[in-house]
Amino acid sequence: MIKRIAFLGPKGTFSEEAALRYKPNSDFQPFPTIFTVGLSVANGDVEEGVVPIENSLGGSVPETLDLLIQEERLSICRELILPIRHFIMVKPTTKAYDVQVVYSHPQALSQCQNYLKRNFPKAGQIASLSTAAAVNDMLKSKVSAAAIGGRRVAEIQGAEILYGDIQDNLTNVTRFAILARHDHAPTGMDKTSLCFSFSEDKPGVLYNVLGEFVRRKINLTKIESRPTKESLGKYIFLVDCEGHRQDLLVKEILDNLQRQTSLLRILGSYPSWKDASS
Amino acid sequence: MIKRIAFLGPKGTFSEEAALRYKPNSDFQPFPTIFTVGLSVANGDVEEGVVPIENSLGGSVPETLDLLIQEERLSICRELILPIRHFIMVKPTTKAYDVQVVYSHPQALSQCQNYLKRNFPKAGQIASLSTAAAVNDMLKSKVSAAAIGGRRVAEIQGAEILYGDIQDNLTNVTRFAILARHDHAPTGMDKTSLCFSFSEDKPGVLYNVLGEFVRRKINLTKIESRPTKESLGKYIFLVDCEGHRQDLLVKEILDNLQRQTSLLRILGSYPSWKDASS
Repeated sequence: MIKRIAFLGPKGTFSEEAALRYKPNSDFQPFPTIFTVGLSVANGDVEEGVVPIENSLGGSVPETLDLLIQEERLSICRELILPIRHFIMVKPTTKAYDVQVVYSHPQALSQCQNYLKRNFPKAGQIASLSTAAAVNDMLKSKVSAAAIGGRRVAEIQGAEILYGDIQDNLTNVTRFAILARHDHAPTGMDKTSLCFSFSEDKPGVLYNVLGEFVRRKINLTKIESRPTKESLGKYIFLVDCEGHRQDLLVKEILDNLQRQTSLLRILGSYPSWKDASS
Repeated sequence: MIKRIAFLGPKGTFSEEAALRYKPNSDFQPFPTIFTVGLSVANGDVEEGVVPIENSLGGSVPETLDLLIQEERLSICRELILPIRHFIMVKPTTKAYDVQVVYSHPQALSQCQNYLKRNFPKAGQIASLSTAAAVNDMLKSKVSAAAIGGRRVAEIQGAEILYGDIQDNLTNVTRFAILARHDHAPTGMDKTSLCFSFSEDKPGVLYNVLGEFVRRKINLTKIESRPTKESLGKYIFLVDCEGHRQDLLVKEILDNLQRQTSLLRILGSYPSWKDASS
């Protein structure tokens, strides 16, 4: 049976590219926001959803972290790491030296700052909701405009590529999370994502939690904080560690964390990308 | 002498409101991005700059964190916490039930999601570079549009307010950093911001650093990570702690951190807002 997979649309985004790499022969459905991708998975309208979770230059995608914190029906069942190659594109009739504004998603703009400063120092930068939306905004712009996005969106929308690989850092990669209503069975080379918070604001609470990992030599591959949205200065911590939640040592840590935290949610155990790539 | 103070513009932003509260009788200069505010301070074109650093709902402002990490000539010399009240506004001729798109800064859109879902479920949401730019985008829109921003921007641009206080959470506050080329002298009620990273990726390094604070009972008011931009999985940690960098215990911690980290930068010591408010 063909799987229905939601992705952060519109067509041509890097999320679609990730979805195509993940399971090429699926029924792909674009959704306008990360939140609606998550909702469609949580409600069972689709089997899985593909959303960006972290970029090597821009950092975490806060909408995805907040979705995972809030929506208890969702788990991460896979991760997928994709190189991000940015292209600057224009209408076929536009000349590079005429460009007055550059459209893109804020993360893409931030990933091409050095290039833009060097080559388009006077052009205004305008945020769009996605790289695909940026190309659309550019095509509709009344002043001479350029847009930054992937090669695929240029092809889909008929834009003309001026230059390729304009990202400041050639190690620009994005980690995507595949969301489902269950996580992945152990494979022996897994990661586990979790989040937790504390009711008390004492100096030692986070330190003690990290100690549980350190004592068992379980490496943390990421630690991040998000606001609880209750008041400034209250945080939910998000941690990725090596191992599966069913592994003995990870299970021990999770049991101990249950007692030390006021909120603990396992966001999923899934194969580590380096080892899962075929 | 009147101080020259840069803020994240254009006129009407919450950063301008923060700047006005901070030093009302100054020469205020709007800059288009957080980066250019920082550069104008670093270069000495202005004495101080006002940028948002953290919101109680949206979390950290990554551009500000990255600016502080990268620009060694900048320090935080003050913090200022401002309640954020969002208003939805339209052209005086637009009716609420006609609204097809809502413009705002992505953080403001995310702070009003519940309101928008309830009241404008079918309206598209379009990201703008600031709340002030959003009002401008709304006024120029050819389809019936609304914008979300502060009261001040509605007044400045002549928009009509439909409803006020539409933020999902009434404890919506933003912390602003006042940037200068030096930090603040000790006042007895201070905070210190610092960032550090490690060359080795061992489980215990962050744990050991936190231990330096815990052993001296120095409370961490914030811990956050940003990518080093070298490769995925390498992070710079940003920490706010109680006390001034010249205080004995904080000084001890910083001396010890120098040996345990591969990069250590003091982003500034400054009066804690709660105690500095008059």
